[in-house]
Amino acid sequence: MAARSGEFDLIARYFAPIAARSPASLALRDDAAVFSPPQGHEIVVTTDALVGAVHFRSEDDPANIACKVLRVNLSDLAAMGATPSGVVLTTGFNRGVSEDWIAAFAKGFGEDCARYDVALLGGDTVATPGPSFFSLTAFGSVKSGQALRRDHARIGDLVAVTGTIGDAALGLAVLQDRLTPDNDADRDHLTGRYWLPRPRMATGQICATLGRRIAAMDISDGLLGDARKVAVASGIGIEIDRTKVPLSDAAQNCVKNADDWWDIILDGGDDYELLICAPDDVMAQLDDQVTIIGRVTDQAGKVFITGPDGKMVEAVSHSFDHFSER
Amino acid sequence: MAARSGEFDLIARYFAPIAARSPASLALRDDAAVFSPPQGHEIVVTTDALVGAVHFRSEDDPANIACKVLRVNLSDLAAMGATPSGVVLTTGFNRGVSEDWIAAFAKGFGEDCARYDVALLGGDTVATPGPSFFSLTAFGSVKSGQALRRDHARIGDLVAVTGTIGDAALGLAVLQDRLTPDNDADRDHLTGRYWLPRPRMATGQICATLGRRIAAMDISDGLLGDARKVAVASGIGIEIDRTKVPLSDAAQNCVKNADDWWDIILDGGDDYELLICAPDDVMAQLDDQVTIIGRVTDQAGKVFITGPDGKMVEAVSHSFDHFSER
Repeated sequence: MAARSGEFDLIARYFAPIAARSPASLALRDDAAVFSPPQGHEIVVTTDALVGAVHFRSEDDPANIACKVLRVNLSDLAAMGATPSGVVLTTGFNRGVSEDWIAAFAKGFGEDCARYDVALLGGDTVATPGPSFFSLTAFGSVKSGQALRRDHARIGDLVAVTGTIGDAALGLAVLQDRLTPDNDADRDHLTGRYWLPRPRMATGQICATLGRRIAAMDISDGLLGDARKVAVASGIGIEIDRTKVPLSDAAQNCVKNADDWWDIILDGGDDYELLICAPDDVMAQLDDQVTIIGRVTDQAGKVFITGPDGKMVEAVSHSFDHFSER
Repeated sequence: MAARSGEFDLIARYFAPIAARSPASLALRDDAAVFSPPQGHEIVVTTDALVGAVHFRSEDDPANIACKVLRVNLSDLAAMGATPSGVVLTTGFNRGVSEDWIAAFAKGFGEDCARYDVALLGGDTVATPGPSFFSLTAFGSVKSGQALRRDHARIGDLVAVTGTIGDAALGLAVLQDRLTPDNDADRDHLTGRYWLPRPRMATGQICATLGRRIAAMDISDGLLGDARKVAVASGIGIEIDRTKVPLSDAAQNCVKNADDWWDIILDGGDDYELLICAPDDVMAQLDDQVTIIGRVTDQAGKVFITGPDGKMVEAVSHSFDHFSER
């Protein structure tokens, strides 16, 4: 076997070309990168990591892993209404991964940076004896004072989501052989939603531009669990009508076969859709970008859900938690 | 054994109190943090990770690991002349570490954030089956256009360093039982320099404030290897006089016993002192903050070193590289 490239070679070969697009990166040569937010804007910063044997398996497609670590962070920017500008990436490659694996990771990452128009501003590359890990920090900008926040929900607001809910969690169930979809199209849709979330950049940015009081967060840990976080942060309650929760055709096929999948749809993570609470007239402006699923109440910190039988029950969350036994 | 706290509990218990000092962190509750650079300033960003079994061992003091991951990043900011403002931290704790270990890590981290006046703006906490890892991204600000850079060295510049060189690499040799110091004071000094680098914030900021052409980088991978990076980036050569390289008393005792330790001193990493190239009159202004060790020449990309015998040889670097076999 040929000798492994050194760390600096790896950076030069695979990551410097991605960084070369941004003058701020100083071509990954300096100690740090330099950039400025547009006049009158604030910097929004977020960080999220994907870890082997926790968030992905060694046999998974490296390009999917690369895209996902970028997109989950962009989704956090979307939830603040920010426009992304750059990222820094720490890669901890397991010593056993091939250079082909690293090349495929870098290729997927570079393509996704171009797709979302974000610059790779810097990073760190380490070889680890443990599972590979990828830690990304993303920066964006938002007009000063206009960032969306979780604590902005008020009693009487409507509650809405973007896209469809539950696909990613069902996709994970497919990947783990716990769910067999009716057909290949459903399988591809659900697993695709798990691997390649579509951060809701446009909707987040429109919300920030409206300049109104809007609460938002991205649904990474499950609709009910994340709704509770908004409820706690804002000191309000949230009532969700299950019959209004938007499902994809593939998810509808799942619950048609077994009603139990509703638990996964409502509690599972990885959708990266936006949960938005805002007054009626704001929701009217968002129009077909969101689906109204409920209303904000005075039951501080609590989430209730109404089923097809019309009965309302308090939702008990089983949000994904890496430190808990499952 | 008591049940492990969940991820959200861990963040709330150990990291939220550190973050509470900064309004920008939104108390680690929102999807992302929001901050602004001072008027007329640019943002400087850098990222560096420490990985178990690569950069530290599981029996090492968690507070030292916490301080080191912060300080190596602050050192990158110092090398750009930036004033630190905030950090985001991803912690990947091995599933076997105790909550006491996590508490000690967080305590050390919080104290060091206070010491350097940096805010914890956000983070991510994951449990991993592999070695623990810590990935930190640091932000600072510098007056627009005044960031120090590696490519600013010019022929005729003086070459200088802050502090003393080689202590950290000798400290690592002590920790690995490859070196037995003459006395306990030397042992403590050398190992202390390995664990607790002192990022040269003040010297870096003064350099940026001078508004002159100054090349700088922090010496993380060894004096000779890092000098070569400046030489390559600036398209110049660097001549270093070994007899002028500043050594601590402890390092002097080592080379008195065995001249071979010079290789470790010149090639070893982890000093986090600054390497500075600037015209004579700029160096005069830096005065006792730096020691002149050489001069910039026209031998593009090359580093030469003169020994006590007066003979000059080209330096061959063995800079630490996590991907190479050593």
